[in-house]
Amino acid sequence: MENIPYKIYLSESEIPKQWYNVRADMKNKPAPLLNPETLKPMTLEELSGVFCTELAAQELNDTDPYIDIPDEIRDFYKMYRPAPLVRAYCLEKYLDTPAKIYYKFEGNNTSGSHKLNSAIAQAYYAKKQGLKGVTTETGAGQWGTALSMACAYLGLDCKVFMVKCSYEQKPFRREVMRTYGADVTPSPSETTEVGRKILAKHPDTSGSLGCAISEAVEAAVKSERYRYVLGSVLSQVLLHQSIIGLEAKTALDKYGVKPDMIIGCAGGGSNLGGLISPFMGEKLRGEKDYEFVAVEPASCPSFTRGKYAYDFCDTGMVCPLAKMYTLGSGFIPSASHAGGLRYHGMSSVLSQLYDDGLMTARSVTQTEVFEAARQFARIEGILPAPESSHAIRVAIDEAVKCKETGEEKTILFGLTGTGYFDMVAYQRFNDGQMGDYIPTDEDLKAGFEGLPNTNFDRVIEK
Amino acid sequence: MENIPYKIYLSESEIPKQWYNVRADMKNKPAPLLNPETLKPMTLEELSGVFCTELAAQELNDTDPYIDIPDEIRDFYKMYRPAPLVRAYCLEKYLDTPAKIYYKFEGNNTSGSHKLNSAIAQAYYAKKQGLKGVTTETGAGQWGTALSMACAYLGLDCKVFMVKCSYEQKPFRREVMRTYGADVTPSPSETTEVGRKILAKHPDTSGSLGCAISEAVEAAVKSERYRYVLGSVLSQVLLHQSIIGLEAKTALDKYGVKPDMIIGCAGGGSNLGGLISPFMGEKLRGEKDYEFVAVEPASCPSFTRGKYAYDFCDTGMVCPLAKMYTLGSGFIPSASHAGGLRYHGMSSVLSQLYDDGLMTARSVTQTEVFEAARQFARIEGILPAPESSHAIRVAIDEAVKCKETGEEKTILFGLTGTGYFDMVAYQRFNDGQMGDYIPTDEDLKAGFEGLPNTNFDRVIEK
Repeated sequence: MENIPYKIYLSESEIPKQWYNVRADMKNKPAPLLNPETLKPMTLEELSGVFCTELAAQELNDTDPYIDIPDEIRDFYKMYRPAPLVRAYCLEKYLDTPAKIYYKFEGNNTSGSHKLNSAIAQAYYAKKQGLKGVTTETGAGQWGTALSMACAYLGLDCKVFMVKCSYEQKPFRREVMRTYGADVTPSPSETTEVGRKILAKHPDTSGSLGCAISEAVEAAVKSERYRYVLGSVLSQVLLHQSIIGLEAKTALDKYGVKPDMIIGCAGGGSNLGGLISPFMGEKLRGEKDYEFVAVEPASCPSFTRGKYAYDFCDTGMVCPLAKMYTLGSGFIPSASHAGGLRYHGMSSVLSQLYDDGLMTARSVTQTEVFEAARQFARIEGILPAPESSHAIRVAIDEAVKCKETGEEKTILFGLTGTGYFDMVAYQRFNDGQMGDYIPTDEDLKAGFEGLPNTNFDRVIEK
Repeated sequence: MENIPYKIYLSESEIPKQWYNVRADMKNKPAPLLNPETLKPMTLEELSGVFCTELAAQELNDTDPYIDIPDEIRDFYKMYRPAPLVRAYCLEKYLDTPAKIYYKFEGNNTSGSHKLNSAIAQAYYAKKQGLKGVTTETGAGQWGTALSMACAYLGLDCKVFMVKCSYEQKPFRREVMRTYGADVTPSPSETTEVGRKILAKHPDTSGSLGCAISEAVEAAVKSERYRYVLGSVLSQVLLHQSIIGLEAKTALDKYGVKPDMIIGCAGGGSNLGGLISPFMGEKLRGEKDYEFVAVEPASCPSFTRGKYAYDFCDTGMVCPLAKMYTLGSGFIPSASHAGGLRYHGMSSVLSQLYDDGLMTARSVTQTEVFEAARQFARIEGILPAPESSHAIRVAIDEAVKCKETGEEKTILFGLTGTGYFDMVAYQRFNDGQMGDYIPTDEDLKAGFEGLPNTNFDRVIEK
């Protein structure tokens, strides 16, 4: 074996001091968020009603390539970062492949995923602005947990609207958040106007992410001292998550390794965008070439079967409009255990890069994903989150192809987190009771019909 | 702040190449295991019927200070080791203490604890001996999970007898083991003679650790190709766990730091023994002095209220007799959420060291422990296992004392694992429904009456 260790840990001083903003190097900038009433690009002032001012500025900043990471955030990062870059020697040996496989592992923290990287940043700016707290929604619970941890550390209030069925079915995630002091409310709830409206209409509803977003936004905007925060999709989130790719690149550069292919799972795009950003920067600047692969669930295929169009980010239609690959905000993904990937849309940044042909996408079925997850757990020791396992599936498939062709491809993928709170899904798989759900064209058509049909292009200045 | 990072990671080449066997440096050796029929010390041959031969030899070896770690085991260690030594800067700041607090964190692996260090060793020797598999019992599930992971990696069968109430109440632990391919049987079961006997007598029993041990031993000895393995108490386990202390010591030595006090939770003693071993060696050889503190639950106080006597290791009385601090093998600890510490006895090695006045012990109540756990989670980010939190409790108490006295004490404690599968306990605590259970003298008396009353000392050769 080469002189590359199983795990490459950077030193604390090598934790990046700046995030990288890939938008600065994009020729075709991502389309701006639009005010749903005026259909004009959201201004800093408008965004500041919902987000902290500094985060609103980051959301709009598509020119500065580097943005300083405040020392206070770096101190928090030091508690769980640098995250290891792992050489999957055992998996390579097991697959008997000439491919070299690396993964950036973001699961070594209590939130169990990369979400903490942006949670601490968003909480920090809220604290700095003198706010009392933040509001958010959570589905699978990884984002809510991460935000609870960040808020506990900074002494901020944290109000989480948790989709009611998750609240009931994932009581342990809920308890982690409560242990960190968060106020967790099952959504829809009686605490907001939108919640009360929905409950009056559908008293037995088990809730949805779209409804929880609307409640969290309402709870934020009705108080001067709260703002709303979000764990994915937004460009500010991709900015914070660039730390994943920056650390990975530094670690690979140390050993003179250049990945040929970089693979990440894609729901709203926070992990994938963060992982690929610095590599994509090199590609955009014409310095190096890489193959980027987004892996999404076949049950929610926004890249591979969606449309590139302006759409609502939430089902309540209170948030700004974003141009993105989307299945329509009315599209209800069928039950899937990778809750973190069940989003109808996709980051505007990644959508533009995909539309420009700078990256590719594949969709995989749930059972294929869990087969890869179980294999990976047994060989590499880490029990992966269902979301992360989408990337594992494609990494294994590529490594097997290399065995056939003899190609010594270097593969890097993002292992976003652990599956410790996903054992109901593993149980279904272990019991042979897991099915696959692939929407028909008819299913998708219904979602597309819900797309706003205004001609938005007239308002976009490029 | 000093030039000491938040987390000290050794390099891969610094993973110890030998385990340290503290028994070699003990003047008063731990008393030998006795054959319950002959009341004579167990021979290698006798032990080899239950354990792999190489492990039986390690169990009896109280002379060699260092034992080589096979390369295959070191390769496995590289997947999750070196474990970080963490400087608890945030906790120090929060407590406003002049004390310097370090913890060795063993939770960054899927089993969630230090148990994996011995699981891979025991599985490796079983594989090397050409066995088909191993059997064991598990209560809280950490040990069973660790063993399942090690067996999956080596392609060994793994039969786990899981105490029935845990099997039913901790379905997620069970699913992790199944995902790693283990055969998990609720105990008592119809698959063993001892299980059938118990079920005939108590058809509604929810099982006990003692019964599960007896079933696992029976399942092992009735097949030539299986052996029994155990996650704590045994001297071989302490030997494997010495890697915790060796890594911690190397990391501290690098920065010229000498701990004044070393704290560990104590159930059977595997973590505490492993953590303190190399430091205790220095103390035994008269090179340096340290204060060692074992922390045990007030509900199961074997050190602080037990007797130092020969006793059965299991309630079925099929295992060898061990001299140890014990509450009697018939003592049933009342319900406590730190399942890993609910054992009536204590490692013979630690018992001898404690009896010789080389270490001290304290007991703490469950609610005190969870208060410390929650505080630690919010400040240091890691949600600790209830077991580990016993050590956190005392570390915080000591740091607070330092604030009062101004002493700049250096404290090292073992953070053995994470609490991700203990959220039922956290929920009870969050809801204010957790109680404390302290056995009365009357309760203890019943346990002591069950102690074998032979005069064993006559058979011990010193």
